Amino acid sequence: MTKELRIGMIGYGFMGRAHTNAYKRVGDFFDTQYQPVLKAACARNEEELKKFADNWGYESTETDWRKLVERDDIDAVDICVPNNLHKEMAIACAEAGKAILCEKPIAMNTAEGEEMCAAVEKAGVPNTVWYNYRRIPAVTLAKQIIDSGKLGRIFHYRANFLQDWTISEDVPQGGAGTWRLDVKAAGSGVTGDLLAHCIDTALWLNGGISDVTAMTETFVKERLHAESGKKEEVGIDDACAFLCHFGNGSLGLFESTRYARGHKALYTLEINGEHASIRWDLHDLNRLEYFDHGDEGKVRGWRSIHVTDGDQPYVGNWWVPGLCLGYEHSFVHHVADFLNAYAKGEPCPPTFRDALETQKVCDAVLTSAKEKSWEQTGCA
Amino acid sequence: MTKELRIGMIGYGFMGRAHTNAYKRVGDFFDTQYQPVLKAACARNEEELKKFADNWGYESTETDWRKLVERDDIDAVDICVPNNLHKEMAIACAEAGKAILCEKPIAMNTAEGEEMCAAVEKAGVPNTVWYNYRRIPAVTLAKQIIDSGKLGRIFHYRANFLQDWTISEDVPQGGAGTWRLDVKAAGSGVTGDLLAHCIDTALWLNGGISDVTAMTETFVKERLHAESGKKEEVGIDDACAFLCHFGNGSLGLFESTRYARGHKALYTLEINGEHASIRWDLHDLNRLEYFDHGDEGKVRGWRSIHVTDGDQPYVGNWWVPGLCLGYEHSFVHHVADFLNAYAKGEPCPPTFRDALETQKVCDAVLTSAKEKSWEQTGCA
Amino acid sequence: MTKELRIGMIGYGFMGRAHTNAYKRVGDFFDTQYQPVLKAACARNEEELKKFADNWGYESTETDWRKLVERDDIDAVDICVPNNLHKEMAIACAEAGKAILCEKPIAMNTAEGEEMCAAVEKAGVPNTVWYNYRRIPAVTLAKQIIDSGKLGRIFHYRANFLQDWTISEDVPQGGAGTWRLDVKAAGSGVTGDLLAHCIDTALWLNGGISDVTAMTETFVKERLHAESGKKEEVGIDDACAFLCHFGNGSLGLFESTRYARGHKALYTLEINGEHASIRWDLHDLNRLEYFDHGDEGKVRGWRSIHVTDGDQPYVGNWWVPGLCLGYEHSFVHHVADFLNAYAKGEPCPPTFRDALETQKVCDAVLTSAKEKSWEQTGCA
Amino acid sequence: MTKELRIGMIGYGFMGRAHTNAYKRVGDFFDTQYQPVLKAACARNEEELKKFADNWGYESTETDWRKLVERDDIDAVDICVPNNLHKEMAIACAEAGKAILCEKPIAMNTAEGEEMCAAVEKAGVPNTVWYNYRRIPAVTLAKQIIDSGKLGRIFHYRANFLQDWTISEDVPQGGAGTWRLDVKAAGSGVTGDLLAHCIDTALWLNGGISDVTAMTETFVKERLHAESGKKEEVGIDDACAFLCHFGNGSLGLFESTRYARGHKALYTLEINGEHASIRWDLHDLNRLEYFDHGDEGKVRGWRSIHVTDGDQPYVGNWWVPGLCLGYEHSFVHHVADFLNAYAKGEPCPPTFRDALETQKVCDAVLTSAKEKSWEQTGCA
Repeated sequence: MTKELRIGMIGYGFMGRAHTNAYKRVGDFFDTQYQPVLKAACARNEEELKKFADNWGYESTETDWRKLVERDDIDAVDICVPNNLHKEMAIACAEAGKAILCEKPIAMNTAEGEEMCAAVEKAGVPNTVWYNYRRIPAVTLAKQIIDSGKLGRIFHYRANFLQDWTISEDVPQGGAGTWRLDVKAAGSGVTGDLLAHCIDTALWLNGGISDVTAMTETFVKERLHAESGKKEEVGIDDACAFLCHFGNGSLGLFESTRYARGHKALYTLEINGEHASIRWDLHDLNRLEYFDHGDEGKVRGWRSIHVTDGDQPYVGNWWVPGLCLGYEHSFVHHVADFLNAYAKGEPCPPTFRDALETQKVCDAVLTSAKEKSWEQTGCA
Repeated sequence: MTKELRIGMIGYGFMGRAHTNAYKRVGDFFDTQYQPVLKAACARNEEELKKFADNWGYESTETDWRKLVERDDIDAVDICVPNNLHKEMAIACAEAGKAILCEKPIAMNTAEGEEMCAAVEKAGVPNTVWYNYRRIPAVTLAKQIIDSGKLGRIFHYRANFLQDWTISEDVPQGGAGTWRLDVKAAGSGVTGDLLAHCIDTALWLNGGISDVTAMTETFVKERLHAESGKKEEVGIDDACAFLCHFGNGSLGLFESTRYARGHKALYTLEINGEHASIRWDLHDLNRLEYFDHGDEGKVRGWRSIHVTDGDQPYVGNWWVPGLCLGYEHSFVHHVADFLNAYAKGEPCPPTFRDALETQKVCDAVLTSAKEKSWEQTGCA
Repeated sequence: MTKELRIGMIGYGFMGRAHTNAYKRVGDFFDTQYQPVLKAACARNEEELKKFADNWGYESTETDWRKLVERDDIDAVDICVPNNLHKEMAIACAEAGKAILCEKPIAMNTAEGEEMCAAVEKAGVPNTVWYNYRRIPAVTLAKQIIDSGKLGRIFHYRANFLQDWTISEDVPQGGAGTWRLDVKAAGSGVTGDLLAHCIDTALWLNGGISDVTAMTETFVKERLHAESGKKEEVGIDDACAFLCHFGNGSLGLFESTRYARGHKALYTLEINGEHASIRWDLHDLNRLEYFDHGDEGKVRGWRSIHVTDGDQPYVGNWWVPGLCLGYEHSFVHHVADFLNAYAKGEPCPPTFRDALETQKVCDAVLTSAKEKSWEQTGCA
Repeated sequence: MTKELRIGMIGYGFMGRAHTNAYKRVGDFFDTQYQPVLKAACARNEEELKKFADNWGYESTETDWRKLVERDDIDAVDICVPNNLHKEMAIACAEAGKAILCEKPIAMNTAEGEEMCAAVEKAGVPNTVWYNYRRIPAVTLAKQIIDSGKLGRIFHYRANFLQDWTISEDVPQGGAGTWRLDVKAAGSGVTGDLLAHCIDTALWLNGGISDVTAMTETFVKERLHAESGKKEEVGIDDACAFLCHFGNGSLGLFESTRYARGHKALYTLEINGEHASIRWDLHDLNRLEYFDHGDEGKVRGWRSIHVTDGDQPYVGNWWVPGLCLGYEHSFVHHVADFLNAYAKGEPCPPTFRDALETQKVCDAVLTSAKEKSWEQTGCA
């Protein structure tokens, strides 16, 4: 018999839609003991909130997030708000005994993240952070290949996340669609927004990062602030790149920017091992490229694997071979895994604790860029 | 105020799932006056039907399709069964005044299709056939580009649909998953199953096909029949290719097979015009390739358009630039368009009449292959 | 000790340059018993001939090809002139006991080709036809893979050769650069010029073609004739496509055109076997794509083989892995193979007899297009 | 009237072949006032030298490079030997008034390079360094596009050069084929061998690099030394990556390694500007990818330019559109440009002085990696 997991959603933006879609679809495609129920949506803007709740079918609304957290008919809270609000909300949820699904990055910085980890662990509540790209089937397949030992000793890991949507000086900072450009709401620019994704995947696939040297840049120095209505100094990093060492002895190279003309959301990663290598690209997310040096020499080459077969991760729950999945499916997979873990009382990675490691690397990166020095991350 | 369009679904196979998913999702992403309601699912196998209905949330079930058609609480019937059942069901639906969404190909042959067209037109019921690939955003964009006149005079159209799933002699014919190999249920092999898709898109993008010369082949001559439990002669075409002339003077080249090792569902099309050309490939369905001879010579080349921007067809209703859509979205778009057309009392192409044109080409192709002659299609 | 093979070259056009370059380079990269010596170049236009001979270092010139053929200091004649001149020259060369390297297609039609074959075989002179694409390393590797049995039973072969250089109505016919558009000089259009390449490779890789159904088109009906200075009807085929059966039971699909906007010289081929498939594309000629169904399922995909390793055909004589070869290298390889065969008294395929098979298919294709019928090729 | 440029070649390795091929071919394809003559080849190993000279047609040989430099019948010396010999030879050549074509990198370090620059400038002899990749047509086209202003303000430059040929611990260091692994002969590992190419192109395309932070790694710590016959510590960098700032305010990211399994010689570069971006890849060297934000939004995408048209750099001297060039053509272009510059008394970039800038960046990179600090390059 299916049991309910009653969701309280805070926020209704882009991610609010992506998560809600996942809650609604998971049951159609995955057999899980629990089934999400859209109990309540919460935001301060009542009019927009109503539209959102009506459109997606939330049973009720709240304009005060503390009320939502106090409600007895909510089992899990989804925190889909700017980064500067994560900590307070997450701690309150933990104290109220709610399961928590928190948007990434976990917090504004490591210190906040530590408090959040302490709170959820003290409360013993289920928790996960929405680093969704782990659950693109091709990326999960990459993990399986690595875990199988096919790559051997790892020499190199490189990743980048390139966008081009803030090149125009007319893009404002702050406010609904552009809070990611406002350092007070976001904490950082591309580092927390984009590199954090690359780092999460890297830690998962290749283990801990020990030290980094980084550089950041803010190409557009002043932008109109959507809230103040005035031009204000831009406090975020428009671009960030860093070199690093992984604990396993391999070298890392990471880059992110919103000024790479021609790239909408080009998240690519590559890992080179002694015996085999792997590449992936979000723009063609159904494909995984794989090179196996063990193949017969004359016919050896990079394989372009169209990850749409039933024996590949998550894929068997959808359509038939050759038919593409998209971006949103990663969230459905995350929810499916969360529901299964929830039923078993097991953690659903990345947990808050896992996401804290990513935060440590982000913090070290920003410090390094500021101090022009190599920095230890303190990451395991 | 949203009105209900109460759906009766006949069939619960792969397409039953794809269509049902579309009915459930359309309202979350598209503003339409009507909203589908999953009123009843129908199939003979009661046990499987129950599972299907429960999983997807159909309100009721029927094991006799005639009962379903007679129900007053059904506005539209979705015919998702083998081809040999289309005609009878569609005519009954028309007579009962139901809107009809019929799987492709429309029928076993042109004669059946004619009867069906006559019935729906006499009854004046809304009707459409699920040639879903028209509504992949990249394909719809191709249509817009062609309609804009950018290509000029058309010289060539080529398309193929290549699969490899029936190479093994152990794949049976007949029965639930493999009725497409049984000529009695399917009418033909790849011609009706795969080439029909290529032809529908071609007629839409490039106009009528006047005459054809074709060849078919059945590589595996005998297969176990899932129903009889015996080896029986295979009556379908495993592969089919044809040359043709379009009414606009351009040349066509079409091929389909289930014996192209390495291709899961490689539907590609290309159209070459005087000034520009277009290519598309289902395996990378978010991309459209476009060559514009008007570009400055030194920097001219095929453009790889990642069709994920808000101003491209259907895309604005989903996520943000760079984030991929998948196969299933084409069905959601079809439903959205159907609902809008339904509200306005307008036809939603491809209608039965449109799909009949595709059937005429399929029939001419099969006749040509049998007679080893050029055949007129009778297609407009 | 290196021996001389004294070359007499008739013609100085594009192919004259490509062949001459091959004669000059072969000794730098390949160990062969014989070394070509550029003894004499021959053409009617004395001024242009001088320039050509001076540029490339021919020791002497002739303006009458019969004189060239009679010279005792010439061992081998390279026939690099329009197709309508091949027969007479080749027969004269054979009678004079010269080795012959003849441009493709072998002749204007099969009847001429038969006479030529008879002449060279009667005279017992070494002979080869410049179907150079066989010796692109990736194509030769394809042959090795097929011969190894990796593909198993073959189901499909498809090839096309797409160009776009005659779309403008202002391109003339006849004369130096455009004799290929003049039916009197060329015999046919794309069939003999481009499809002949596709057919030669196909016969080599996949064996004989038994019957064909074809269609041709002449999109631009009249063009200025460079010699007459007047508009004349165009007699060549601008585009040609055909379906066929191979002797091994596989199906073939071929297309060629000079009206495919965006394609400069897109010669692609693909062969689908029971166990594996192969693809190749002249625009990226260093790569061979290979799919092996025997690969482990979860990591199976098309391999992009960069054919630049020392153990791949011809490659070891050039640079190091990863460094591309180009178009002209195919001719160098052909000369190297010819010189080795010459030294051993063995045939260097494709011989005149081999090329005659291609001509038979071309003739059947043109007849089929004219008669709108399936035609037997008479090809082995 | 063509004049002779009498070449004395020191070295007969891989580069000796590549350069000699270029000298022999340039006259067949390019009109230049001077024509190279292969006057003498020089090396210590007399037997190997003989073979080399005979194969390529050098008129004479020398086993003492000082003798070669003293010969009156030599106009230009090509220095094709390990890096530790460049300085002494180049200075002697300059003092002897010879033109110099020196392999890259210019020297073991900046100090040596300074001496060499001083010597050639004092002597006033023509000089160039073989950074050949500038003259791949697609790369030269990139330069033309950038110079045209199409990119606008530059934000990012990234390049990498990835190989995999030293992963095995059995590859020795020192000796004929592997001196690049011996720090005494090479000065550094991938930094001078591979990154130097990336840096040269970057300085040419994007201007000076001001400061860097770098990391290097030696994955295999000991290798057999081919000369001593003993295992010795490896002194070179197996991998090197660095971040940097360009003088124009853009950010740079560079990486090189010989441990990237699956990449034979993957030199890629990308430059992102305000209005347009460019990408290139040595494995597919005939293609340039170009994104122009000025294109109409709905049909905007990365263009894949097949750089084989007559109006694109160098291409008109070779074949016809669509037919690929290869690696070796870059050297032919360099020689053609050198001969033209020589005739006019103009410098042929990159001169020794230009190559010194690359050396400064390399030195700063190695220092940074050692000191774990940001380093100024001193580069203009």
